[in-house]
Amino acid sequence: MKLNNNFDNIPESYLFANIGKKVNEYKKANPNADIIRLGIGDVTLPLCEAVVTEMSKAVREMGTPEGFRGYGPETNCYSYDFLTDALKKYYAKKNISLEDHEIFVSDGAKSDLGSIMDLLDTDNIILLPDPVYPAYLDVNVIAGHKVIFSNANYDNGFVPLPDPSVKADVIYICSPNNPTGAVYGFDALKAWVDYALAQKALIIFDAAYEAFVGDSSLPTSIYQVEGAKKCAVEICSLSKTAGFTGTRCGYTIVPSDLVFDGTSLNKRWQRRQTTKYNGTSYIIQRGAAAVFSDAGFRQTREQIAYYKNNAAVIGAALDELGIWYCGGKNSPYIWLKCPNGMKSWEFFDLLLEKAQVVGTPGAGFGKNGEGYFRLTAFGNAERTKEAVERLKKILK
Amino acid sequence: MKLNNNFDNIPESYLFANIGKKVNEYKKANPNADIIRLGIGDVTLPLCEAVVTEMSKAVREMGTPEGFRGYGPETNCYSYDFLTDALKKYYAKKNISLEDHEIFVSDGAKSDLGSIMDLLDTDNIILLPDPVYPAYLDVNVIAGHKVIFSNANYDNGFVPLPDPSVKADVIYICSPNNPTGAVYGFDALKAWVDYALAQKALIIFDAAYEAFVGDSSLPTSIYQVEGAKKCAVEICSLSKTAGFTGTRCGYTIVPSDLVFDGTSLNKRWQRRQTTKYNGTSYIIQRGAAAVFSDAGFRQTREQIAYYKNNAAVIGAALDELGIWYCGGKNSPYIWLKCPNGMKSWEFFDLLLEKAQVVGTPGAGFGKNGEGYFRLTAFGNAERTKEAVERLKKILK
Repeated sequence: MKLNNNFDNIPESYLFANIGKKVNEYKKANPNADIIRLGIGDVTLPLCEAVVTEMSKAVREMGTPEGFRGYGPETNCYSYDFLTDALKKYYAKKNISLEDHEIFVSDGAKSDLGSIMDLLDTDNIILLPDPVYPAYLDVNVIAGHKVIFSNANYDNGFVPLPDPSVKADVIYICSPNNPTGAVYGFDALKAWVDYALAQKALIIFDAAYEAFVGDSSLPTSIYQVEGAKKCAVEICSLSKTAGFTGTRCGYTIVPSDLVFDGTSLNKRWQRRQTTKYNGTSYIIQRGAAAVFSDAGFRQTREQIAYYKNNAAVIGAALDELGIWYCGGKNSPYIWLKCPNGMKSWEFFDLLLEKAQVVGTPGAGFGKNGEGYFRLTAFGNAERTKEAVERLKKILK
Repeated sequence: MKLNNNFDNIPESYLFANIGKKVNEYKKANPNADIIRLGIGDVTLPLCEAVVTEMSKAVREMGTPEGFRGYGPETNCYSYDFLTDALKKYYAKKNISLEDHEIFVSDGAKSDLGSIMDLLDTDNIILLPDPVYPAYLDVNVIAGHKVIFSNANYDNGFVPLPDPSVKADVIYICSPNNPTGAVYGFDALKAWVDYALAQKALIIFDAAYEAFVGDSSLPTSIYQVEGAKKCAVEICSLSKTAGFTGTRCGYTIVPSDLVFDGTSLNKRWQRRQTTKYNGTSYIIQRGAAAVFSDAGFRQTREQIAYYKNNAAVIGAALDELGIWYCGGKNSPYIWLKCPNGMKSWEFFDLLLEKAQVVGTPGAGFGKNGEGYFRLTAFGNAERTKEAVERLKKILK
């Protein structure tokens, strides 16, 4: 049996696994250390009441002959109407009109960001931003694609624009961005859509953090930009919208208008999903739909406000310390320039050892991340304040 | 953007979608028809009490600050100890010793049967049985693999043995088999393990129906056969073990001993899963663990007994009608030879039109399935009896 040896071309360990290892070693050496984690992008607030109520009901239903559900509706790629309807209404509020068959419920964005590789020929040029969420790079290396980068940096505020002289087949955009927290405006996103259309390229738009956008002058979906339905897939998740990191649900939009060489990507994705996926749990789909009910929406947006307040607390401290950063306003991520010209892992070690605060070294996200550092707003408010005080103490 | 045009080589519609279409057309033309579905392999009994209780508890936990869980443990590919421990004990009862890191919790067998393609080079020869569960074939066609078949037929009782003169890199075995219900004995399975070891081939063993094996002289895991840990991955699901078709949980075993060209498949699979998957919902993992509790095990085995009784009812009718079949004893599937030399779809139409019973045409599973027909035991007991009476009436 011949192995896919593209795996040899990706680093053996995953960034967050490396961080975990460093933290565990530190804890072993300092068992009483009071560590505050502002590193991995995991949420901390419990699921909201509306979601808990609906999932509890769904679990009970599943235990009764009348309420039991087996495989989800095959005709709709296992997505239930109650959830696709809720999502259609959510998109309608963004002035985007979607059909049922354009909405695919998933078990989270990460699965679909990987699964979509199945639709692509090996011979494609993939354009990623640098710095980048590592999984985008890794899945493309595993698939044997040629990967090129666009530079996100201090000069362009970490929102790079397309270079028409660069040939690309697939373009990844994440806005609000992970790891930088930077958000594309309408004009910049339009430039990418126009570029993709001109290149006959596919945009994979990761909207996982869209719910953090409070500024109404910023897009929360790529389909708010004209022409996007002809060139973009949008992948979203409830992980950050509603604290579903451990509950697992997301959705992927593949518009009917998305046609390459006469082939409907929507039909291809349907075929992929019915062959290699069997749907998201009925119970979880019920919980996901509750996120978009009046109560669920209010409750989850309160949680987002809580996290955004953490981001504001971190931002205020960085302002006070005179440290440059982006993100943190319409995003749960704060991307800061390491003070005193420090390198990313150097700053990681300093924060861990001197302040017992864990963040994520920017270098883990690509060469342009070197010298930068990611903090997240997903912690407890009191603990975030405590972390900020410690930062101020060691950096002043 | 260049598409993966291997998709052009698979039939556009999926077998069960075709059946669904035919049934819907019949229902439109005959709105009062009382249709009994013994076709698609979906379960009908509700989740057992032990599973409902544990999932209800997990949902409530997720709504509290103390009980909330985000991403699953990354170090264990997002599988929780409480579930891997339960699975280790389940395998120990089969005299198989597993380590935590050899057990990967999934959202179902179908996902992992597809995802495992990522580990394989395109240049591999895949040996499938014919007839075959369509997804095995489709995922390999999508991946661009060369597929060859071993003939399962009347003469070998639908349990083909390896032909040492045939070169294969990856071998699929499903036992108890879908669609035929045939079950491999120890000697036959040992022949496949020896063949795989000699060929340096990988066996993908689908054990989704293992819980239906009542005969203790039959293996329920490939690892009960010596040498299997050096050549086989085992993919299993709780869909049929515990009625999880709509709840979604399975597990995949990738032994540490599985090494190809000096590369650990276990480590590769870990890397694949941490990159392209984010784990199974905590709530669902709690439900899955409950399946292996004393109460859960008893309750789910009672459900299996109920389904096996349906299989016995169908089998008795076929015996009475003098129709040859296999399966139905240690399997939920009954694979019958269409009477009077009828073709599979011909028999499908006859049953639908004359008896309003829906089954699955054997031809949908491959050329050796032509002239055969699959019935499943997953229906309601009374309805199954009614279906059997209708069959007797039209076939006597």
